[in-house]
Amino acid sequence: MLVGVLGGGQLGRMLAMAGLPLGLRFRFFDPSPEAPAREVGELVVGSFDDAQALDRFSAGLDVATFEFENVPLAAAERVAGRVTMHPSPRALATGQDRLSEKMLFREVGVGVHDFAPAGSDAEVRSAAATLGLPLIAKTRRMGYDGKGQKVLRHEADVAVCWAELGGVPLLLERLVPFEREVSVVACRGVGGEFAAYPLTQNTHVRGILRESAAPAADPGGRLGEEAARHARRIMERLGYVGVAAVEFFVRGGELLANEMAPRVHNSGHWTIDGCQCSQFENHCRAIAGLPLGPTAARAPSVMVNLIGHVPSAAEVLRLPGAHLHLYGKAPRPGRKVGHVTLVGPDAVAGAERVAALSPIT
Amino acid sequence: MLVGVLGGGQLGRMLAMAGLPLGLRFRFFDPSPEAPAREVGELVVGSFDDAQALDRFSAGLDVATFEFENVPLAAAERVAGRVTMHPSPRALATGQDRLSEKMLFREVGVGVHDFAPAGSDAEVRSAAATLGLPLIAKTRRMGYDGKGQKVLRHEADVAVCWAELGGVPLLLERLVPFEREVSVVACRGVGGEFAAYPLTQNTHVRGILRESAAPAADPGGRLGEEAARHARRIMERLGYVGVAAVEFFVRGGELLANEMAPRVHNSGHWTIDGCQCSQFENHCRAIAGLPLGPTAARAPSVMVNLIGHVPSAAEVLRLPGAHLHLYGKAPRPGRKVGHVTLVGPDAVAGAERVAALSPIT
Repeated sequence: MLVGVLGGGQLGRMLAMAGLPLGLRFRFFDPSPEAPAREVGELVVGSFDDAQALDRFSAGLDVATFEFENVPLAAAERVAGRVTMHPSPRALATGQDRLSEKMLFREVGVGVHDFAPAGSDAEVRSAAATLGLPLIAKTRRMGYDGKGQKVLRHEADVAVCWAELGGVPLLLERLVPFEREVSVVACRGVGGEFAAYPLTQNTHVRGILRESAAPAADPGGRLGEEAARHARRIMERLGYVGVAAVEFFVRGGELLANEMAPRVHNSGHWTIDGCQCSQFENHCRAIAGLPLGPTAARAPSVMVNLIGHVPSAAEVLRLPGAHLHLYGKAPRPGRKVGHVTLVGPDAVAGAERVAALSPIT
Repeated sequence: MLVGVLGGGQLGRMLAMAGLPLGLRFRFFDPSPEAPAREVGELVVGSFDDAQALDRFSAGLDVATFEFENVPLAAAERVAGRVTMHPSPRALATGQDRLSEKMLFREVGVGVHDFAPAGSDAEVRSAAATLGLPLIAKTRRMGYDGKGQKVLRHEADVAVCWAELGGVPLLLERLVPFEREVSVVACRGVGGEFAAYPLTQNTHVRGILRESAAPAADPGGRLGEEAARHARRIMERLGYVGVAAVEFFVRGGELLANEMAPRVHNSGHWTIDGCQCSQFENHCRAIAGLPLGPTAARAPSVMVNLIGHVPSAAEVLRLPGAHLHLYGKAPRPGRKVGHVTLVGPDAVAGAERVAALSPIT
């Protein structure tokens, strides 16, 4: 079975490493000839607006998917016109637009912060007046790793917001203090079967995910169950097939959905080493119509992202329970070049050591 | 770090899948453009006697290794003349010759069956007279999966042995009943550090490995310790770097060494899913000068080879603790096309089911 993946980054690379043993082969589409997935499959290099390149990519595929949520919708739709795509372009479209996400969350009964869209400077001002400060303004599209966001604390921030964020459609949300951020990575099969990984607690530094710890503290398992229920409702509403992640804020013991990612997710990387069947394998299984695999954690696991810096492999590998995952990318400031997952009783101490060995640059 | 691998079969493919996350990249040398490793690295297609192709392969490598023990020694030596090779061509030469192996085993105090070499029809007859029947005659070179062997029970077998096995140098061994076959997969680092996986029990069908179960039954752990000690002495004598396997017969609670493989080994495939650090990762770590990883078993594991038949992936993946590993090879009678490892309390029952789903052809 030949799987086509729009995007050839580290997520695609890890998808292929999980899928090759299942008998899948991979073809990637990426604008860069240096895409990290090039080592584990065929790479079609092209721009996402190059219809001919997209058709060359689509030819002969058994199924298509994406690993990059900012794939232009038109590109996904062109491919989906020729070959089955999981998840669907509709799910991609929802995940690309913060307003659609939020409306979907609300529609299926998932808690969210108060929000309002704003399509002009005047709408920013009126939304700010309605919701009240402080707010966070986010571009509806193309946001990731904290980019395209601005906190509005004073009227002066409101006044410059529209111009500063580039005059593009925005979503404004109440900025409410929260205790922690968690996420759930879940998978839905072609027949509707559903499985969720344990709730994961995430720590961001300068807007970039630095650490994910799983299972997250969750007395009685109530939050994890609720997060999985939410993910299930969202995925059912979208007719979703494959892996998705939903991020939540925890405030006063309640979950408030922040955003969803219609793809395998950084907060699920720990599942490669911490679970029998990783998020990557489960995505492959789902889109190939195979039964889903177990999602329980083997042991406490902590994943640390390597951001702009590749530590000494020898030092990392000496830590108990450490698994090194480099993506074959040249280090640049703010660029995720790999991650380390520590599994077992020493995971937390190991993660601290990795963070010290690999400062963020 | 660019690793060159002589041979591009499934062992090379699994080496690359373990090594890519460590930051290694791979180049394979194989006579076939269809070599299973082609999907996870660069493939140089050439005959092992093509010096130019070997030099093209060697150019720019940081370290070389092999995944196929019948690589002609001259090819390995040519590559080793240009780039560090682990294990060394000397270790390869020993592993290629059943007589050298047996002499090494005896030299370092590892128990073996009585044996004698035979380089002619007359020598077969005189060795048979000295050792006594029954014997097993094996070609000294190029034997694998039970090929190049003949059991000598009667004088008539002795008379035709030399001609039947092709008039090539032979090793004759006493054919002694044994209770079971076990193996130890071990790893030695560049600094001499050593680690051994739990003893594994192997079941052959028609001369081909069908099933490996680990850890093998071993009350008190005495056999496992002894096997590891033997492997260590053998590897130290060879100045070995990387993973090797030693196969033993168990007779009356004692180990008798049968043969060694100077490479990752089929009886160690279970370590991908059954251990924190697989034999493939440990081989990569050793040859790259990285610290070795832990070799303890997570849980009881059984590996079943898929021989000439690819079962339904869906049926396999429904079994508890099942991990499917297909090699991207077309099924042909007697050809290993993949394996399934079952980890956990249901491993034995799962293995029976896999064997039923995937008859040997």
